[in-house]
Amino acid sequence: MKVSGGPKTTVTVDASKIATVRRNNLGLVLRLLRDHGARSRAQIAAESGLPKATVTSLIGELVERGLVREGAADRSKGVGRPGQSLEVAGSAICALGLEVNADYIGVVALDLRGTEVFTTRVAVDVRELSADAALDALARVIREAAAAVAAQGVQVIGMCLATPGVVDAEAGTVVFAPNIGWQDVHVPRRLGERLPAALPAVQVDNDARLAAVAEHARYAARGVSELLLLTGEAGVAGSVITRGRLLRGNASLAGEIGHAALGIPGRQCRCGRTGCWETVVGLGALLERVADEGDPVRDAAGDLEERMSDVLARARAGDPRTLAALEETAASAAHGVSILADILNPEIIVLGGYFAFFGDYFVPVVKQRLDERAMLPTFPGIEVVRSPMGFSAAALGAARFVLDSVFQDPTLVDAPEPVTTA
Amino acid sequence: MKVSGGPKTTVTVDASKIATVRRNNLGLVLRLLRDHGARSRAQIAAESGLPKATVTSLIGELVERGLVREGAADRSKGVGRPGQSLEVAGSAICALGLEVNADYIGVVALDLRGTEVFTTRVAVDVRELSADAALDALARVIREAAAAVAAQGVQVIGMCLATPGVVDAEAGTVVFAPNIGWQDVHVPRRLGERLPAALPAVQVDNDARLAAVAEHARYAARGVSELLLLTGEAGVAGSVITRGRLLRGNASLAGEIGHAALGIPGRQCRCGRTGCWETVVGLGALLERVADEGDPVRDAAGDLEERMSDVLARARAGDPRTLAALEETAASAAHGVSILADILNPEIIVLGGYFAFFGDYFVPVVKQRLDERAMLPTFPGIEVVRSPMGFSAAALGAARFVLDSVFQDPTLVDAPEPVTTA
Repeated sequence: MKVSGGPKTTVTVDASKIATVRRNNLGLVLRLLRDHGARSRAQIAAESGLPKATVTSLIGELVERGLVREGAADRSKGVGRPGQSLEVAGSAICALGLEVNADYIGVVALDLRGTEVFTTRVAVDVRELSADAALDALARVIREAAAAVAAQGVQVIGMCLATPGVVDAEAGTVVFAPNIGWQDVHVPRRLGERLPAALPAVQVDNDARLAAVAEHARYAARGVSELLLLTGEAGVAGSVITRGRLLRGNASLAGEIGHAALGIPGRQCRCGRTGCWETVVGLGALLERVADEGDPVRDAAGDLEERMSDVLARARAGDPRTLAALEETAASAAHGVSILADILNPEIIVLGGYFAFFGDYFVPVVKQRLDERAMLPTFPGIEVVRSPMGFSAAALGAARFVLDSVFQDPTLVDAPEPVTTA
Repeated sequence: MKVSGGPKTTVTVDASKIATVRRNNLGLVLRLLRDHGARSRAQIAAESGLPKATVTSLIGELVERGLVREGAADRSKGVGRPGQSLEVAGSAICALGLEVNADYIGVVALDLRGTEVFTTRVAVDVRELSADAALDALARVIREAAAAVAAQGVQVIGMCLATPGVVDAEAGTVVFAPNIGWQDVHVPRRLGERLPAALPAVQVDNDARLAAVAEHARYAARGVSELLLLTGEAGVAGSVITRGRLLRGNASLAGEIGHAALGIPGRQCRCGRTGCWETVVGLGALLERVADEGDPVRDAAGDLEERMSDVLARARAGDPRTLAALEETAASAAHGVSILADILNPEIIVLGGYFAFFGDYFVPVVKQRLDERAMLPTFPGIEVVRSPMGFSAAALGAARFVLDSVFQDPTLVDAPEPVTTA
């Protein structure tokens, strides 16, 4: 970057290294309006300690980017020239959260205030499709969603896709997702080719991690910043929120607790290694304990929710084998969760996915184990809750993730181009 | 907080909730000077995007707080009025890192650039002292250190104490530290009573966590932001740095991997629970495997470093029992580290404490296990290194921690009072 300060000084600096003060200040002003409501430029200047001229310039940019708008004149403060009130331009823009899973494609649109303005879910047997065909189907659903929100006068400012498997969020690549048959799929490029140029680029992250973003959003207002989500079906993941943000690790591999060596040593995992935790705590392990081969609940071709409901019905009817299977699986879950708790010391542990479905059996066992192993009984305990979101948390989290990044860095949203054609 | 904007507007806001824009900008300017060297106000304004008037005001405050000073006039840019160059006032101020451990009290002083300007370590049998007597001894060492740095013209701007045990860093309390016999010791108050009022308040945190701050400082220049330190003697801790900052958890209990249920189920731990990992991976477990009771290396009254050196000598001489004991203990370490790696996905794992002392035996076993269990062999692997800092990392980390907080929030440093007496 070359910055000219007049004919006498020419400063050359590394643009990637300079302090991004203005960006931070844009975010701070935007979050101030989100968290404390509409207010005047004078009020923002007073509360932030920024010079009034700077605030005027920051607000100018936020309005230009469509994130803030002039509200009603604020006459509540008595006589004199009223301050023009600013507010978050909440309902005119939205983020799309996308999800591709083994048997469906889903989209949810949240406006800047987090209100759901559109949602759809299409049953697709993604395992039977090539990655290209699945991306075609996803692009169709995105175009429909964009048209639906456009009809409401809402502009899409960002999109994020949730997929199972190993995702390199920084590179934008689904590295290895056997459940949907994707390998090394560069999402922004492959999806960008299929979408109108007017739509923003698509980010991507692992579905379990994005689900934790959605769970955290439910507690953020309470000030919770340390949260763990244990979620799973066949695979099992532990997604960590710390200081209010997702823990991704160095190579986007954090949270792979399902493949940690917490199972029975030597037992083969579908990942190729042995002794992985998911072989004793995954849904597959539960179903093997519940029934012999041939029982419909173990028929992989059957509808998953129906099979789980069947298991739940057996448990509620008091079937001893089902209850023993749930007890054993819950003990394995409690063992791993207690280790996660010792390492991470979260305020809240959310059980999601199939653990939430069988929450009546998992939650009390996990709670009891944490109480038994409490480091200091006088210290704040850990709250254990079941997710109310079921399997839909990932798309919601993806949309939340886009909104969060906009509140951190409003320059992610470009100013809209002047509309020349309808 | 009440902010008056003239007779016509009175704005009442919650001071704890308002955006701390100015504080952030002070930190950004200070870090810019630290990371990119001396530069003029015009250059800082150009690089940060802040208005020149704001930069002048921020620099004024940083100079007043003694964190920045005017350097030589910068004539390198050719003709015309030269810009006055600013730089970090590195050598005039320092942070004191303090450590109280079972058998010594240590102090290290680092100036704002991280240069060690003073260090001392006093052998004290802290276990034999009451908390009050230990605090007396610590206060003596602090006064000596403050006098020594004052003689060099260096002012102490902050202090942080590292202790073993459970520490509530936010409250400033050593909650439970059986190794030194402290319970519910409020450090800022109890130490403040013993020190001159001119010295700043003392923060406190767990020694293993602060050691991770020191280890991370060695890699921060390389851009490492995800690091795990496994450290231990009798106790074992796993301290986590993520996004470049310490993971403390909700109640300051994060990192208690030594008491996670990774040991032999049912085996009694000195903490009162059973099955804790430290019962199979702590120094005590190693020594029990190395020798029978009565062997000098198992004599708790003997000097610890001598006993460890004795074990190391036996291993180097090829003693089969010692080698088998190290192998078994290293396998336990590798097991736990691989689980930590699956959850956290760090870039670097540092083995500290007694694991570093026997690093020739631990490092290769841990490395091999991580390679065997690598999630994706094509992904960046995890570097495993032994700490070169031995048992002195905690005090260094405590000093680093104070410096880091100043670079985040320069208002932590008060402007010096005018000196009226010598």
